[in-house]
Amino acid sequence: MKGGSRKAEGEKTQGERVPRSALTNVHLYCFSPGGFLRGRDPMEIVSAQIRGGADVIQLREKDMSRRAKLELGLKLRELTEREGVLFIVNDDIDLAIILDADGVHLGQEDIPIRFARPLLKEKIIGISTHSLEQVETAVKEGADYVGIGPVFETATKSDREPLIGFDLLSKMRHVCSIPYVAIGGIGKDTIGSLVEAGCHRAAVISDIMLAPDIEKRCNELRRSLV
Amino acid sequence: MKGGSRKAEGEKTQGERVPRSALTNVHLYCFSPGGFLRGRDPMEIVSAQIRGGADVIQLREKDMSRRAKLELGLKLRELTEREGVLFIVNDDIDLAIILDADGVHLGQEDIPIRFARPLLKEKIIGISTHSLEQVETAVKEGADYVGIGPVFETATKSDREPLIGFDLLSKMRHVCSIPYVAIGGIGKDTIGSLVEAGCHRAAVISDIMLAPDIEKRCNELRRSLV
Repeated sequence: MKGGSRKAEGEKTQGERVPRSALTNVHLYCFSPGGFLRGRDPMEIVSAQIRGGADVIQLREKDMSRRAKLELGLKLRELTEREGVLFIVNDDIDLAIILDADGVHLGQEDIPIRFARPLLKEKIIGISTHSLEQVETAVKEGADYVGIGPVFETATKSDREPLIGFDLLSKMRHVCSIPYVAIGGIGKDTIGSLVEAGCHRAAVISDIMLAPDIEKRCNELRRSLV
Repeated sequence: MKGGSRKAEGEKTQGERVPRSALTNVHLYCFSPGGFLRGRDPMEIVSAQIRGGADVIQLREKDMSRRAKLELGLKLRELTEREGVLFIVNDDIDLAIILDADGVHLGQEDIPIRFARPLLKEKIIGISTHSLEQVETAVKEGADYVGIGPVFETATKSDREPLIGFDLLSKMRHVCSIPYVAIGGIGKDTIGSLVEAGCHRAAVISDIMLAPDIEKRCNELRRSLV
C-alpha cells in the first residue's frame, strides 16, 4: 500500500475541491465490480484493487437501485477515505453529494457540466469523451479530467462507440490541458502500447475483474503506467 | 383552466417549500408521457392534461437519458410555473434541484428521505408505498405525501406489487396524517369506487394517455374526484 503518500496528495477538508495535483498523480483508475461481481464480496474486490495500487475507485453499478448504490457507496467512501484513494461516483450527482465523493463522472448523455457545476461546487467532474471535439468541449466547459475511449475493443459497454484512434491518443498530451484517462479494452496485453502512445493513465474494468489475482494484476498494470 | 386560483394556492418564492395547502388541493395527479408518447408532442400531451384540470405534473421518463430528461424538464418547469400547477420530478433528486421543481417522488428502492431531505430542503418529497407499514414509515421520516398502490391491475409497472386492498384505502383517511394519492389502474371505469372508499386524490397514467381526447378525459376524472 502506498496509502500514506497518496493521503497527503489527496488531502482535503469537507466541501473543498481535491486539488488538481491529486488527479495528476492518478495512473490506475478502477471501479466497483458491477456485472463482474459473480458472487464475490464487492468490498474485497475493491480492497484488492487498492492494495494493488488503484489511485481512484469509481462507484459504477448500472444495474443497482439508487438505494443499493447508496449502501455500497457509504462503505466505499469510508474505505477510500481511509486509504487515501480518490472516490468518484458515476452518473448520479445526487449520490456524489450525499456520499461526499471527491467527484462525479458524467457521460455525453448525462447532465451537462454547466448544470452540474453549481451543485457539485469544488468537486471533481470527469467527462467521457469519444472524439477530439468532445474533449475540447469538456475542457471549455470546465471538466477536471476526461475519459477518452474506447481505445481497444471491449465487452463492457453495450452501446458501442467507434474506437479512438491511436493518433488521437498520441496527440492528446499536446492538445488537452487537463488530465486524460484512456478507457476501453485496456489490460496487461494492451497497456504497453498505451504507454508508447504517451498515455500514462488508464481506466481498467474487465482485465482486472476477471484476473485470477486482482491485487497482483493491479500491481502489474500500475507499474506499466509509471 | 383554473390556473388563476391554483396559482394563488401554489405561489412560492425560490427555495421556499410549496405550502402543504397546495398538496391538500391536489386531486388529479398527472405525468409526462413516458412510453405512451407514440410520436406525439410531449408538451401538447401535458398541456392537454393541464387544460383538463391536472393539479400536478410529474416528470417520469424511465427510458430517457438524464440529458433528455433535463431538456424536457426545462420546458415542463416553464409550463407548470406559468399555469400554477405543481411540478414533481420522479427519482432524480439532482434533476429536481437543477430544474427547481416543487418536489421529488421517490420509490422504496430510491434514496431514503433522511439522505434526500438535506439536499431538497423545503421541497416536497413524495414516497411510493405499498403497505400500511410503508405509509407509516414514510410519514415518520417526513414525507410530504404518499402514493399508495397499485389499487387496481395496471399495465404501466412491470415490477408488479400486490394490489392494495380497498380496506386499507378506506382506512387511510383515519391513519394517514399527510395527503395520499391512489395509483395503479385508475381510470374512468374505476375512479368511482376510489371515491366511494373515501379517496379524492388519484394519479392516472394509461387511462389518460390512451384516451381519444386527453383534455376531456382529465376533466371527467377530476370532476369525479371533487
